[in-house]
Parts: sequence; structure tokens; C-alpha cells
Amino acid sequence: MDAPLPTLDRPRRIELDARDTVAIVVNSGGLKAGATFDDGLTLVDDVPQGHKVALVDMKQGDAVVRYGEILGHAVRDLPKGSWVDEFSVELPEAPALDALPLATRPAPVVEPLEGFTFEGYRNADGSVGTRNILAVSESVQCVAGVVDHVVEIIRRELLPKYPNVDDVVALSHVYGCGVAINAPAAIVPIRTLQNLALNPNFGGEVLVIGLGCEKLRPERLMPNLSEADAAANVLSLQDERFVGFEAMVAGILEMAEERLKKLNARRRETCPASDLVVGVQCGGSDAFSGVTANPAVGFAADLIVRAGGTVMFSEVTEVRDAVHLLTPRCATEEVGRALLREMAWYDRYLAAGETDRAANPSPGNKKGGLANVVEKALGSIVKSGSSSISAVLAPGEKAVTKGLIYAATPASDFVCGTLQLASGMTVQVFTTGRGTPYGLAAAPVIKVATRSDLARRWHDLMDVDAGVIATGEASVEEVGWIIFREILAAASGKKPWSDRWGLRNSLALFNPAPVT
Amino acid sequence: MDAPLPTLDRPRRIELDARDTVAIVVNSGGLKAGATFDDGLTLVDDVPQGHKVALVDMKQGDAVVRYGEILGHAVRDLPKGSWVDEFSVELPEAPALDALPLATRPAPVVEPLEGFTFEGYRNADGSVGTRNILAVSESVQCVAGVVDHVVEIIRRELLPKYPNVDDVVALSHVYGCGVAINAPAAIVPIRTLQNLALNPNFGGEVLVIGLGCEKLRPERLMPNLSEADAAANVLSLQDERFVGFEAMVAGILEMAEERLKKLNARRRETCPASDLVVGVQCGGSDAFSGVTANPAVGFAADLIVRAGGTVMFSEVTEVRDAVHLLTPRCATEEVGRALLREMAWYDRYLAAGETDRAANPSPGNKKGGLANVVEKALGSIVKSGSSSISAVLAPGEKAVTKGLIYAATPASDFVCGTLQLASGMTVQVFTTGRGTPYGLAAAPVIKVATRSDLARRWHDLMDVDAGVIATGEASVEEVGWIIFREILAAASGKKPWSDRWGLRNSLALFNPAPVT
Repeated sequence: MDAPLPTLDRPRRIELDARDTVAIVVNSGGLKAGATFDDGLTLVDDVPQGHKVALVDMKQGDAVVRYGEILGHAVRDLPKGSWVDEFSVELPEAPALDALPLATRPAPVVEPLEGFTFEGYRNADGSVGTRNILAVSESVQCVAGVVDHVVEIIRRELLPKYPNVDDVVALSHVYGCGVAINAPAAIVPIRTLQNLALNPNFGGEVLVIGLGCEKLRPERLMPNLSEADAAANVLSLQDERFVGFEAMVAGILEMAEERLKKLNARRRETCPASDLVVGVQCGGSDAFSGVTANPAVGFAADLIVRAGGTVMFSEVTEVRDAVHLLTPRCATEEVGRALLREMAWYDRYLAAGETDRAANPSPGNKKGGLANVVEKALGSIVKSGSSSISAVLAPGEKAVTKGLIYAATPASDFVCGTLQLASGMTVQVFTTGRGTPYGLAAAPVIKVATRSDLARRWHDLMDVDAGVIATGEASVEEVGWIIFREILAAASGKKPWSDRWGLRNSLALFNPAPVT
Repeated sequence: MDAPLPTLDRPRRIELDARDTVAIVVNSGGLKAGATFDDGLTLVDDVPQGHKVALVDMKQGDAVVRYGEILGHAVRDLPKGSWVDEFSVELPEAPALDALPLATRPAPVVEPLEGFTFEGYRNADGSVGTRNILAVSESVQCVAGVVDHVVEIIRRELLPKYPNVDDVVALSHVYGCGVAINAPAAIVPIRTLQNLALNPNFGGEVLVIGLGCEKLRPERLMPNLSEADAAANVLSLQDERFVGFEAMVAGILEMAEERLKKLNARRRETCPASDLVVGVQCGGSDAFSGVTANPAVGFAADLIVRAGGTVMFSEVTEVRDAVHLLTPRCATEEVGRALLREMAWYDRYLAAGETDRAANPSPGNKKGGLANVVEKALGSIVKSGSSSISAVLAPGEKAVTKGLIYAATPASDFVCGTLQLASGMTVQVFTTGRGTPYGLAAAPVIKVATRSDLARRWHDLMDVDAGVIATGEASVEEVGWIIFREILAAASGKKPWSDRWGLRNSLALFNPAPVT
């Protein structure tokens, strides 16, 4: 974000594939009817910025093509130069899941990327954190008031004594009791909470505050520890040794300080980029997302994979309509089947709620030019770059392999962020067209604006301006390298804007099972 | 909570109905095999406190009766004096909903209760608050970080200038985007948020912070205002007039201060008890809940209804198995049908998630002696007292009538509390056997312990000890009057323990629709 960028004075549009029958308008403020592009194409309607213009005369029923893919079919004749808005395009069926090619398109062979490093906190299990945070897990919402009270004391009175500890974070949530804990789908929130506590940014120190009568037994948050080790990391407020509130507070503070001492002894050390676990996500998307920010993030994702690191992309409803472009990229047929399994699960989940994937996109997405979920998905998956998909995670599962991973999550920004943290993410890259102040307490979030307008207006919230790709001032590769270097910097301790202001969204568990 | 209560030195049990075949053990620490009650009944097993002892020789298949109702049937022979634990009782079918008597049992005729008042904040719409709070509504989780930042500034810099304002509260939630907003069940979280903003404790001042691209349009939170009035109460962060984060913060602070000025001009005034809207709830229940705290709360509920006020009881899964005792008490057949409609809705909701009402109770409930959801429900509905049920609310609906209201909610403490706030609750009475530090930011919560052990141990978290009913030191009526007077005191500004410590649970929306 240096000097303001020049305003475009000539009509400019972007098309991405020779087969496309629509292009999107780049100019800030849109273009008026009569505006003529350099190649002679003249608008017959006013077209807002980011919205689509017909490149050819389309008849009712003709395919509307962008990214070389069919977004849907024209609901009426759409003459060349007309505005192709959300009401002009009929949503097609989602790709059927039973006849897709699996693992048929190996990733392009690329050179490994060597020599890139960051300064991280290495954990006993080999994982590397980008922050050194004391996390206080909660087995149930009932204890949240007490934990908040204690966290404030820790921040005020203890953290100054342990200057190498970056922060203390309560992993609050509204799960844990009053839930159908034996319903099949309850596995999702439970494993999410289990894995959240193990995020590499928490240094392997686990502290669980429980109540005592809740359904989610606090020990259950630590499934791989011995009973004794689990008990040593749990404090239950109903424990009879606590006479009164202040005794509970003292008990938690004592356990917290033991952990602060250990965390405080840690130091950043030089780690190869292969130790990165990066989550990529988009929110408040617009039609530029798929041509500026997301391709640049995809380029950066390829760099990380080439460096031997891990990249997670997510958001089932924003992948569903482009899944036919992903199944061929799966490294093996087994990975492909896992991807289809997650899509099918979500199809059923939405159908059970009497809805479908057309519930996405949002009004803001549409205002930003995205006609439907097909167009949104085609732009969204670009964040995954071009690598093979090496693994698929069900929601909240922990990544245990490297490379490009599909971590299935809802597309909701805050739910996706929470699940990527559970999967082990230590840095997130978040692209936005409409703008969001989103941030996470547990990991730095680098925000990439799809448009320079937004980057300028939100100069102290957006970390990278990818809008320069649309104006022709920079290439996807150039912005991709900027994002890659910002990832290494954030992983080494640089604070993105959301951290500088202390903007933190709540954790938001995905609980597809009933509450009782 | 005065001097410690005497320890019982003789075996003591409680049975409630002449038909009962089981009674619960009162003694702290339980009783050993061989212990003999005054009437000669001798235990043949060790029986923990609150757990059931067989009063008669039961054969396999015999009904196990408590509260004069069948909890289930003996899975094996249960000799007189034996411990009847959760594994001894087979869960019966829930009462069928198609053949229940509706409005057949009018409430006992009672004298109106006159002359009781509290000091409340009267609102323009006639409702009366018990607190004078500035609430900041959020249309979507995306804005939560910014709102938290601003709320901290308001608390630090503005509240000291407006000493008649009790607090500022962000109504944070994880709804608003990434949700199937057109799914049938989405009405639940949407109306909850609409009605939360209108809680009487917020003085009729509404301030909604939105993002701009979210699915839940901020204006939609104010459905009954004109478009202009709604717009005057909304600030969207994506509004182009905000250049940078600090401009957003300044914009919110300006709107907040306008409202603080108005709220600061309000004064408490003497209001009749008929202006009370009391929510009753139980959490961390045990076998004493139904014999000590809940009957006392029920007595207080009757007093409030006699005084012309409003009492809401809730928790579908803790009412379902006792619904046959409630349908006769409905004031009209229409109210009875509404009650059955809510039960049937929840049956379907649980079935869709491949579970049922047996998912309640929790392990802590069972440890406290509750064998199953029938026993829990029989103890739970006692909170409703003996009045006629005058109305039934679907989850999150606002109460518009007085008297005893069934406000259908999940039994989850935090979800129920959130929904009762949306329904207009201004004071909550919360009974607990196992103990919970639960509190709400928007309304005072009076916590009633079912056992004196707990009241003594949590002397600075429990507001009322109802355990004295079990020991015979006080009657249900006496404790009921104490609770009634505590309600009037809390409504007039007295801080219960949770408020004195600042313990606040998160809002937890009930969203039975899918996230996308």
C-alpha cells in the first residue's frame, strides 16, 4: 500500500479464457451505456464495476461462459455489450458426483523451491508455531465467564512477567452441554475442540477448564493422553477442593502460570518454509476475487507447496460447483473419493435443512458481480493454485500430511477460520472484495483486497492490494510473490493489520448435530 | 446464606407422593448399606446423595414411581432398600402427542397479590427494564472484532460521563452470513436477533453495526421501523464514507454517545410487580432440583403471576416427558395445541439429527441422581408453579401477554438464556444442583442452589440456598418468598453474585437451519 493508484481513464474489462462469452468491467464506478472498449465493443447497458458484459450475441438458452466454464444459461436473449446480471443466468445443476474423473491430471512438474525460511517456534511434536500463545480450552460454555475473568487477570498481571509469551486466548465456544453428544454428526464439533487445543501456536501446552457435570467431559478434549496426563491438564470448577469463586480463580491462575513459565522459555528459530501450514480463504467476494486476489493467492500457494509446506483450501459450497475441475487434480483416486465424500455429505446436510448450495452467494457477493454460486466457486477454487491435491480432511480433522490439502468446511468466514485452526493452520491468507475486518486470536490473518478501491479506502485494514492486477499495474506472479513474502513475515512475527488493532472474531464451531 | 447449616446425623429421605415406589436420599455424602431410616426401612446397597432407594419390593417390569408418575420400569428385581440407579430403569416412550387432554384443569382460584413493587426503568412502549444498558447489535459475526474494540473504548472513556447507564453490551453472535437464510428454520435465529435488540433492559435504543455484504441485512433486525428510522440506527462498516478503521470507530462512537445521552436521562421509578418478566431455568440439575429449588421457584412464579406479572418457563426436552401434566393446565385448547406443536417440532428436529430426547440428561445430572429424562422433566416442570399456562412462544418470539408463558427453547442453559432474553425476560431465576457460575450480561441472574452443600461451598456464587427444604429447616413456601423478594431486589438494581464478579456467558443463538 504505497501511493494511491492512478484511476483508469479508459474502459477496461477482463476475460480469462478464449471460450468466454462474458467479461467483467474493471473501471471503478462501472461504465455507462455507450462506453467503448479499445477493441470496439460498445456497452448497450450501464454495467457496474465487477459485473459482466456480453462479448457475443447470446440467444435465450445459450451457455454463459466465464473461466472457460458454463456459469448457467441465458434466460433471455443477451445482445453483445449488454449487462449480464444475476437475473440473466439460470443456475445449472451442480456436477453429478458419480461420474467424475479422479486423479487424471497430474500437477505440472515444478522445481522444488529452496532457501526460504521463517522464524518460528518449534514444538516437541515437530510442528512449528508462528505465535507463542497460552490457550485456555473450555469444555463447555458454562465456564466462559470464569475463564474470561481469569484471562483478564493473566493479561494484566502475569503476561508482563513473561514477555516471550505473545498472548493468552480463551478458546470459548457454545458447545459442551445441552447438545446431542451421541448424534452421528457430533463428531464434528468434538474433534474440532480436540484439535483446536493442539494448534501449533499454543506450544503443546494444554489447559482445559471444565465445569464437572457437562456432557463433553473435559478429559475427552485430550483423547491421546494417558488418563493421568489428561487429568493434570484439567481443572473442573465443581471440584470439591474449590471453596468459593476466588479459590477457582486461584486454581486456574496457578495452572496458567506453570504453562506461562514453559512458554516463556521458548525462542523463535529459523525454520524452512516447509514448516508452514497456511489456510487460504475468501470472504465478501466479488467478481474480481477470481481474477486478482485469488489467482495471486493460488500462485503463493504453489510456492509454498513447492517449498514443501502445507496449504489448506476449504469452503464446500464454494467448491461444489467446480468440483469437476478438482477431482482430476487429486493425487490419487482415494483422495478423489474423499473429496466426493465431503461434497456428498454436504449435499445431504443442506437437503436435510430444506435448502441447497444456491443459499450461497450473499447479497454482497451479487452486488460485487457474482451472478451465482457457480461463478463464485470458479473464482474461489483459484486460491488452490495448480498443485495436486494430496489429502482431504473432514471438518475439524488435523492435517497430518504436507502439500495442498482440501480441508472441507462451510464457507462461513468465521466457521471456516475456526476449522482451519483446528486443522493446524498457523497463518491465514484471506481475500476480500467487499471488505471485512476479520481477524483471529490464534493466528495472524493476512488480508488481500481484490480491488485497489478497497485497498485505498481500508488502508489500515487490508495488508495486500491485489487490485493492481486488474489495472495491469502488476502481474498475478508479482502479487503472488508479495503474498508469499507476507506469509513468511507474518509467520516470523509481523503483525497484519487485524493484529495491530487487536481485531478478533469469535471461534464458531460447526455443529451439524441437534442441540437438546 | 447465614451460618453453616447443621449436618444431618440421621438417615433422611424424601418422597413426594403416596404412590411413589422410590424416595431420594438427603444425607450429604449418601448413605451406606445397613443405614436405617426412622420408619425402619434399611438400605441393602450404598446409595449416593440424591439417588433413589426402593421403598417396596419391585419385580422386573414393575413401574418405578416418583412424583406419582412412572419414571420407567424396573429392568430387574429391585428389592426394598436397594439403590435404583440409572441402569435399573428402562426409559418409557414419551407421551404420545395426539391424545392429550387440553385445558381440562383450570388453575386453583387464588387471590391477586397486591402491593409489591420494584424500582425499574419504564420504557416508551410500556415495558419496564431492570437495567439501563446500551446494547450494540451486530448483524453478522464479521463486525465483532470492531464492535469489541469500540465497546472497550465506550466502557473506558464514555461510560464514566454517563453514570446512570449501567453498562454497554455487544450482542455478539455467529450468525448473519454463511447461513442458509432462506431455509425454513432460519426464522428462529433471525427473530431471536430482532427481539434481543428490543429487550426492555436496553431502553428502546437500538444501534446495529453491520458489515454491508452480509446475508442478514442489518435493517432486517428492525422489522417494525420505517426504512428511514431503521437506517438511522444502522452503521455499515463498508459504507464508503468510512476511510480507514479509525473512521469506522469514530462513526460508531458518535452513534453510541447519542444513545448514551438518552439512556443517561432515565431514572428508576416505582413499578408494580406486574411489570416483571421473569425467566426460570435450571442447569446442572440433580435429584434435589425437583424437591427443593424448583418447587420454591414454582411458588415464587405463582406469586408473580398472582401479582399480574409474567413468568416464562422453557426447555423442550425437559418438558416433553411431562407434557401430559401441562396440557391440562393450558388456559385454552388453542394454547394446548401450541404447546403440542412445539413438542412435535422438537421431536422432528431431534429425529432429523438421528437422536431423541434421551440425549438429555447429562452425566452430571445422572451423578446427581437423575435416572433419565422423565425424572428430570418431572422435576423441571415444577418451576412453573400451579398457574394456568396463558401462552406459548416459539423459540425467540417476544412475549406480548402476561401470566405464565411456556417459551419453547432447547434445554441448553446458554441457548435457553439467550432465547428468554429475546422473549423479553428482564430477570432470570436459575436453579442448579451441581453448580454453575452462569451469568448474563443483559439481565441479572439469581442462582438458587438445590443443596446446602453446594450453597456453602459456592458461598460467593449462589444467591439462595434451597437445600434447607430437604433438611427440613425451611418450607417450600418460605424459600419461595425469599426468591420472590430476591427477584424484586434484583429488578430494582441489586446485583446477584454473577454480576458482582462480572461473570457473563456468551449469547448462543439457536440455529436449527444449515450453515453454508
